[in-house]
Amino acid sequence: MTNTTREALACLKGVRVLDLTQFEAGTSCTQVLAWLGADVVKVENPTGGDPGRRTGATKPHKDDPYFLMYNSNKRSLTVNLKSPRGLEIVKDLARKADVFVENFAPGAIERLGLGYDVLSKLNPGIIYGQVKGFGEGSPYEKNLAFDMIAQACGGSMSITGDPDGPPTKPGPTLGDSGTGMLLAISIVSSLYRRKETGEGARLSVGMQDAIMHYIRNALGVTSKTGQPAPRVASKSVGGNNPPANIYPCAPGGPNDFVYIYTSRANPTHWPKLLETIGRADLIGNPRYDTREARVEHEDEVDEIISAWTRQRDKYEAMRLVGQAGIPAGAVRDTSELLNDPDFENRDVIQTIEHPTGPFKMLGWPVRHSGKQAKMIPAPLLGQHSEEALRDWLGMSAEQIGALRAEKII
Amino acid sequence: MTNTTREALACLKGVRVLDLTQFEAGTSCTQVLAWLGADVVKVENPTGGDPGRRTGATKPHKDDPYFLMYNSNKRSLTVNLKSPRGLEIVKDLARKADVFVENFAPGAIERLGLGYDVLSKLNPGIIYGQVKGFGEGSPYEKNLAFDMIAQACGGSMSITGDPDGPPTKPGPTLGDSGTGMLLAISIVSSLYRRKETGEGARLSVGMQDAIMHYIRNALGVTSKTGQPAPRVASKSVGGNNPPANIYPCAPGGPNDFVYIYTSRANPTHWPKLLETIGRADLIGNPRYDTREARVEHEDEVDEIISAWTRQRDKYEAMRLVGQAGIPAGAVRDTSELLNDPDFENRDVIQTIEHPTGPFKMLGWPVRHSGKQAKMIPAPLLGQHSEEALRDWLGMSAEQIGALRAEKII
Repeated sequence: MTNTTREALACLKGVRVLDLTQFEAGTSCTQVLAWLGADVVKVENPTGGDPGRRTGATKPHKDDPYFLMYNSNKRSLTVNLKSPRGLEIVKDLARKADVFVENFAPGAIERLGLGYDVLSKLNPGIIYGQVKGFGEGSPYEKNLAFDMIAQACGGSMSITGDPDGPPTKPGPTLGDSGTGMLLAISIVSSLYRRKETGEGARLSVGMQDAIMHYIRNALGVTSKTGQPAPRVASKSVGGNNPPANIYPCAPGGPNDFVYIYTSRANPTHWPKLLETIGRADLIGNPRYDTREARVEHEDEVDEIISAWTRQRDKYEAMRLVGQAGIPAGAVRDTSELLNDPDFENRDVIQTIEHPTGPFKMLGWPVRHSGKQAKMIPAPLLGQHSEEALRDWLGMSAEQIGALRAEKII
Repeated sequence: MTNTTREALACLKGVRVLDLTQFEAGTSCTQVLAWLGADVVKVENPTGGDPGRRTGATKPHKDDPYFLMYNSNKRSLTVNLKSPRGLEIVKDLARKADVFVENFAPGAIERLGLGYDVLSKLNPGIIYGQVKGFGEGSPYEKNLAFDMIAQACGGSMSITGDPDGPPTKPGPTLGDSGTGMLLAISIVSSLYRRKETGEGARLSVGMQDAIMHYIRNALGVTSKTGQPAPRVASKSVGGNNPPANIYPCAPGGPNDFVYIYTSRANPTHWPKLLETIGRADLIGNPRYDTREARVEHEDEVDEIISAWTRQRDKYEAMRLVGQAGIPAGAVRDTSELLNDPDFENRDVIQTIEHPTGPFKMLGWPVRHSGKQAKMIPAPLLGQHSEEALRDWLGMSAEQIGALRAEKII
């Protein structure tokens, strides 16, 4: 049973995006634009294309899930950027584009002759977006960066992990997708403005700076204390309000835990929790009755709760605590998520029929008036070369055939 | 020396946002709209306002950095939503608004009589955005959630931490700000569409679903292996390509580490790294020469690199390895970031003059045609009640005075 409608969203209908992105930071950005209705033409080199197609790929000639996850709803056009004619084609496409996005290594797009200075002369209204590892003007602006470098330099690793252990990389690829989302906001906002002024824009964002956007609570802690925000394992970076932690559940697997959170703003959570776990006898006991008392006896508090959680599985613990109006959440692993019918029922996960086989694809999480964006499988390399050149540049089959014969596309 | 211009961005100039958000998921979204030029009027209860003002606050009558970080560039209007006249005022504001955003507990806004059904009748073109813990139609849609609950249920905790340890909460508040950014994209895209069609939209997003958006690499691993994506400490979730890890630096403090990443796509990284660390003698040594060999002898590889990194501080290590064209990044803590003049030079961090004292504020990381959005301090509670009612509803000083006398604003 599906309780939504899977549809092509039309928010950005008519917007043409010339996409020179690869890997994730750039591709996640342009994919969102595609999900929201833009016509995204991804330009790839004819010999292999986006290296993300092969990143982690285990089967020859089969694009990796990594590529499929970030390139759905786009069209693929192969162009050899090392040929002058190929570059001319990209410039012709830029004349027709509303948006251009790239995330090559620093300086590469300019060396190709496709910098903002060049493209904005051909098309003054173009919205030109760039993702780099470090922001313009940073002492590191020429450095290469990948997600993990941004997570190191942007502070997210320093606030993740055990208090007594080393810094730890957060699993989410915040340096990549987290940055891509910020650029998408600025791109669409610039398109909105352009409807009134006709003005183009040059947008750029550094992954290091984007990471900081997502750790503002920790920066706020430093504002107050003057000290680096600590690592707090699974507790809250700014607060100390036990219980607010993960608790072990049956049958004791690596992800059999439930998060239970009692809010500082809601003093009823603690007595309600005691009632839920069958320890109403402790309600009002001064040893645990105030936040300060629970901080002092935190290990005991954790053990009182663990004694109950260990007796049930994480879903039952979540259900019982959640029903009592106390925030609770089972720790879920990626296999449990991918196989939970809830997400397919809601079209948050959609099984797409990619030419190389069916694939469970995570879609755009935001629901638009009851609709979820419909996923269209990521393109095969060069799958849309003909139609993109025809649609955007009005090329004939003959012209396209000649380009193909000369290995330009 | 500043190499940018701090300016009010005008992308969303003329857009009116009626903001009923609190804490972070909703406030981070509306703040971005404000940074990009929208007129955001935050409606708060006259007795205390957004509970985020006090979250973690250590000083009476001084808004916490948590509030300042997520509410700059907005105006504060106090309205008592428990009074019928107060509710009428909010409805009148909704008639004038382009966007409405809220992130109350599930069902609360509808119980107030401010649900989409009501507001869209008053203003069919309104873009109505909601953040909840769980998506519409989820079995948990009525459950309360905070960032950590979403991080548990959305899978990010299961892929963060030591391989042998428990799940670990990523430090970044991805369930909150990560969700807010996705909603912002859909809001602005819906505004763009509305310029052509005049149509409003109802947008909603669950924090659990939003978390999954940021762990797609890990979901892709499960697509391939059928197994839950593992915890890998600071390594890459999908890959195994040593060296790709953090390495200890002098003088050995808790965040004295450098991330060094040799890309699988670039086989020159390894020999270049050996040269950089004075171990050119190992170039071509079959014990380490291929990826497979380095996987087999990973502990030795890590020790070869650590022997060099331990002799220098993380910045020098980053500089030397980075200069050699190999991705490298010092692990930086929040105090180092907040005090690094680089960010103020680039206006990524701006010191704002809040009425309660100066405050270092992280701004919008995306640069727009050489400009960074200018930060305006978060409002004091009710600071703009008069001007907002005058600007949006044309109320007279007399009318406003009467509302104040009746404690409605």
